[in-house]
Amino acid sequence: MDVKVLTIQEDVMGANDEIARANQALVDRHKTLLVNLTSSPGAGKTSLIMQTIAHFKNKARIAVIEGDVASTIDADKVNKQGVPAVQINTAGGCHLDANMVKKALGNLDLAKTDLIIIENVGNLICTAGFKLGAHRDVMILSVPEGDDKPYKYPSMFMSSAVVLVNKTDVLPYFDFKMDVFTKTVTGMNPQAKVFPVSAKTGAGLDSWFNWLEGELKQVKKG
Amino acid sequence: MDVKVLTIQEDVMGANDEIARANQALVDRHKTLLVNLTSSPGAGKTSLIMQTIAHFKNKARIAVIEGDVASTIDADKVNKQGVPAVQINTAGGCHLDANMVKKALGNLDLAKTDLIIIENVGNLICTAGFKLGAHRDVMILSVPEGDDKPYKYPSMFMSSAVVLVNKTDVLPYFDFKMDVFTKTVTGMNPQAKVFPVSAKTGAGLDSWFNWLEGELKQVKKG
Repeated sequence: MDVKVLTIQEDVMGANDEIARANQALVDRHKTLLVNLTSSPGAGKTSLIMQTIAHFKNKARIAVIEGDVASTIDADKVNKQGVPAVQINTAGGCHLDANMVKKALGNLDLAKTDLIIIENVGNLICTAGFKLGAHRDVMILSVPEGDDKPYKYPSMFMSSAVVLVNKTDVLPYFDFKMDVFTKTVTGMNPQAKVFPVSAKTGAGLDSWFNWLEGELKQVKKG
Repeated sequence: MDVKVLTIQEDVMGANDEIARANQALVDRHKTLLVNLTSSPGAGKTSLIMQTIAHFKNKARIAVIEGDVASTIDADKVNKQGVPAVQINTAGGCHLDANMVKKALGNLDLAKTDLIIIENVGNLICTAGFKLGAHRDVMILSVPEGDDKPYKYPSMFMSSAVVLVNKTDVLPYFDFKMDVFTKTVTGMNPQAKVFPVSAKTGAGLDSWFNWLEGELKQVKKG
């Protein structure tokens, strides 16, 4: 039996990219690193951010822009750590866009901020298409999602500078082949760094922290 | 510190609903049950479909419409079971719409089909907004995603007739409270059936099969 394939293209984009460039120029003026973090729902974005806040406590001043369809659950968590958080509710929208980030940046004191992490809406598709002005796009793929996801969501894997493989603490209970996954990702995106981590136990997070420190130094140099 | 909340509404919908109604009228004429299955990436839609195909082998004639951004991985898997499968590649689009489903239905022999399962694109947001003409919307939430997801993706949980909680085999390794989750879901959507299952081990699937048999009978009655 043959599989029939229907390809139906949809329009994306707009004047978004111009605002994205303005966002990056704005954070550049303040030597603030802007990182866009994406993943599926529940892959561990907020947990990674909490670990990152704890690690950089006395090293860098962090702020977080939280993107969600609804609720302020994540912004509340971040805020409890004494870190400035702006929650964007997209009211049905499946991704942040540059204009939303522009408004959020206007609510942060950039002169007193070294690193802003944008926690994008939980989604592996729409988020890939919209430039926000971030210096770096970082994504999380969690072990339970499966090692075949780069084939299904190629744009996201191809546009990410770093792919964190989270929840390595449950690797024994899933059929996830780390070597196969890493090979697939670097085959699609040779520049990508793949860091297996557990935001729960802290395992492997040093690679992520080191990478982030390097990026922070780069932005400070200008 | 206060959390700032920016609400930014986006436009969705179009003439989609009219095509959706025509889709449903078409399957009704053939007494074919049309089910729309959604979840996050890797939550287990394809595994559930494979189990459902196996269970209904001599009981109902099944066909599958596979929605993906890219690849034919899932349609190939289904096809190997001797079940007709139409793959729709959305080329970046984050959900199926009624027109895509219309085209897929045109590629299936409805007179010889009792049940069509639409495997929507892996996504908890955009898929909720677009009617396809399905008799029932069914979603999967997998244990590793966490029990707080109804608060973050309310539309999806409110529009689903059935919420399958998949990967119960890994419950011991995650902090997922089934009673809390069920209470949250039925609080938002009192009609929703919540079925804890493991598409891997088969545990709990009888509730899902029984529900589906009931729906098949309903559609046959007309």
